[in-house]
Amino acid sequence: MPELLNEQEEQHIDEELVTRLLEEEQPELFREEFLAGHPYDQAKYYEKAGPGLRRRMYEYLSPAELAEIFEVSEIPDEEFGGFLEEMDTRYAADMLAQMYADNAVDVLNEIDKSKALTYLTLMEDEDAREIKDLLHYEEYTAGSIMTTEYVTIPKNSTVRSAMAILRNAAPEAETIYYIFVADDENRLAGVVSLRDIIIADENSIIGDIMNERVVSVLVSADQEEVARTMKDYDFLAIPVVDFQQHLLGIITVDDIMDVLEEEASDDYSKLAGVSDMDTPDRSPLNAAKKRLPWLILLTFLGMVTANLMGHFEKTLDQVALLAVFIPLIAGMAGNSGTQSLAVAVRGIATGDIEEESKMKLLFREAGTGLITGSVCGVFVFLLVFLWKHEAVLGLLVGAAILGSIFVATVAGSFIPLLMHRIKIDPAVASGPFITTLNDIISILIYLGLATLFISQL
Amino acid sequence: MPELLNEQEEQHIDEELVTRLLEEEQPELFREEFLAGHPYDQAKYYEKAGPGLRRRMYEYLSPAELAEIFEVSEIPDEEFGGFLEEMDTRYAADMLAQMYADNAVDVLNEIDKSKALTYLTLMEDEDAREIKDLLHYEEYTAGSIMTTEYVTIPKNSTVRSAMAILRNAAPEAETIYYIFVADDENRLAGVVSLRDIIIADENSIIGDIMNERVVSVLVSADQEEVARTMKDYDFLAIPVVDFQQHLLGIITVDDIMDVLEEEASDDYSKLAGVSDMDTPDRSPLNAAKKRLPWLILLTFLGMVTANLMGHFEKTLDQVALLAVFIPLIAGMAGNSGTQSLAVAVRGIATGDIEEESKMKLLFREAGTGLITGSVCGVFVFLLVFLWKHEAVLGLLVGAAILGSIFVATVAGSFIPLLMHRIKIDPAVASGPFITTLNDIISILIYLGLATLFISQL
Repeated sequence: MPELLNEQEEQHIDEELVTRLLEEEQPELFREEFLAGHPYDQAKYYEKAGPGLRRRMYEYLSPAELAEIFEVSEIPDEEFGGFLEEMDTRYAADMLAQMYADNAVDVLNEIDKSKALTYLTLMEDEDAREIKDLLHYEEYTAGSIMTTEYVTIPKNSTVRSAMAILRNAAPEAETIYYIFVADDENRLAGVVSLRDIIIADENSIIGDIMNERVVSVLVSADQEEVARTMKDYDFLAIPVVDFQQHLLGIITVDDIMDVLEEEASDDYSKLAGVSDMDTPDRSPLNAAKKRLPWLILLTFLGMVTANLMGHFEKTLDQVALLAVFIPLIAGMAGNSGTQSLAVAVRGIATGDIEEESKMKLLFREAGTGLITGSVCGVFVFLLVFLWKHEAVLGLLVGAAILGSIFVATVAGSFIPLLMHRIKIDPAVASGPFITTLNDIISILIYLGLATLFISQL
Repeated sequence: MPELLNEQEEQHIDEELVTRLLEEEQPELFREEFLAGHPYDQAKYYEKAGPGLRRRMYEYLSPAELAEIFEVSEIPDEEFGGFLEEMDTRYAADMLAQMYADNAVDVLNEIDKSKALTYLTLMEDEDAREIKDLLHYEEYTAGSIMTTEYVTIPKNSTVRSAMAILRNAAPEAETIYYIFVADDENRLAGVVSLRDIIIADENSIIGDIMNERVVSVLVSADQEEVARTMKDYDFLAIPVVDFQQHLLGIITVDDIMDVLEEEASDDYSKLAGVSDMDTPDRSPLNAAKKRLPWLILLTFLGMVTANLMGHFEKTLDQVALLAVFIPLIAGMAGNSGTQSLAVAVRGIATGDIEEESKMKLLFREAGTGLITGSVCGVFVFLLVFLWKHEAVLGLLVGAAILGSIFVATVAGSFIPLLMHRIKIDPAVASGPFITTLNDIISILIYLGLATLFISQL
């Protein structure tokens, strides 16, 4: 990103230099240059380096130093296993133990079960237990992305002693900017920000300066809802609790940014009918495997359409010109369906559509479909009339467009709302599915009308 | 979100109670209940309340209190004007002055120019100047989302005096968790986190504990690139500089979360061909206005398709059965084009696709298109052969599918890559456009082949 970052050489790692230092086996100089860079830049280098250089990095870097790299890296999930294999087993276990527990869990979830167990066995009991606790939680829930390395302060501490606790905890905790206050039974009692603590008099009691209205999330909450709450409330961290308000962990904003992007990519890829967004360096065969399920399903649906159209073969045989408008009509229906689908899916995802406004949305979409359908229908009638001088054909095509757009627009919002109601992710009713459905409906409307009025054509 | 938040009444504002207190003109009790809630909840109530109750809120709340509500609210841009009109002009100006300058700019950018000028005139000079400075920056750049309310510390301060500076600045600054260190000429020299300061000895010199490798963004950088950098590096704040490394402002993570969502929604709506994602409470007429530009454009393109097909009227007239497979072929081309478009657009947006890998992506997509095209082509051939017992027709349809999917897949990645190269937002080559283009290409391939082999059918 040359236009973004200032071209100050010292900001980033000099990758050529680092490679040379590794090749020349200069651990001190390597460490000096490499560790001065931001972990994200370290991670980028680490991923690119190749197994030979990486093996040398395992010699020159401590497990804790490598753990920091793994924390921020964006190594694709399926590659974790390979990287860990390169390391000595004990070194790998040490590194996992040094990672924040939530991130270690992300890694362990992606590798071979028996391998994961080996690493857990090699860890110290406390580290292993922290990780095992988190491994229980289902993927995509608050529990699976929370960390257990956070700071709590007793309600009756003074600001002075709170500061002492913070100083102690700072090197380990994932954030010390929000501190959660727990009562004697580890129930969440309040929150106080480091900002509040700094401003407060040293002798004040935490219980007096804390905010008792803490917004928390249940450990079973969906990660997308957690992300929404943090974004809405501008939190840097949010506490995770069980039904009895016991504090179980916290979720920090850096993990939430990843969730926001993950969920947006997810909705986006479903709209496009890609089961899972592939990374650009996947092979053609792997990319094809990801896309074929949708394409095969759509081939079937397309054959159904063809089959239905077969019933109108006689009509098509009589007036071949009819066929010429099929892509136009199907395309318009597909597009307006996708538009209204996108509004509904995104509205559900961002929480803009709540229970009470669902009916309102449906009525609005019906109105919108009527307007867009009428405008496009009249427009097409005029075009056909002026181009082919066929008033009846123009009326027929225009009416089919009006009907198709109306039905497609209503279906485009009705289907995701229905899926949301029956607790299926509405994004699954993705673009290609809605488009094909609307293809079928619109062709039925068009050829049905044509068959009725065939004598006029 | 009942399953997300714990049902503790005291966490949120009791909206009925607040309404009653406003109606009964009980300023003290209203303030007690209302101000205990999180500003986000206050904002939700404020938006819903209606002009009558809001006018009373302007009486009971200070401009500074209302400013906090405006900070976090998600009032749609076009409604800012209406809300400000409800207030006394001086009160509105006071409130804008109390907001963080970056947020005040967001509001002023959306309202009538002459009104904005009035508010600026009524503010104190310093507040007005801060806002005017930011108003210069182009929308969607780092400059437009940065704040100028941040803390800097001289390089030679001790940790003790830095803490004193922070205590002083805490109530005003947007964040005190990252502190940027500037040299005598206000050039960015380093960064130190509050965590580092807390851990450090009180007598250490900031220059010694700060990190000199600060990642910064240029004031003209695109907000999407800023968001990417902050997400990658897990920053809570990033400094904004000019070409000479002068510190101009900072961008905090809460604004970046909004950017991430804005950009994701933007890509998503473009894929669906909605010029701008409409909020669910827009009227049908307004929603139709947003969607019609695309639909009208696509009607034109659809008429071009119809026109091209008109040239094959004789072929269609001879074998009416041909028409039956048009939606299938066009649909498959449209869908595989959208898949490959989505991968390319998202890859460019997330920075996964960099210059060097563009050619690689094109070659990969060509390979992918060949594989998916072959699989679907053979599959369709078999279906047609088994269903209609027509080997030649099956071969024709199968070959058309193979060709269409191949071309559509390559076009789906080539077009966004080309647009990115010539500095047009690739998301503009949105779904409906690619779909219609692929409709045309696939129908030409199909009917072209059919015309060539018409004697065999």
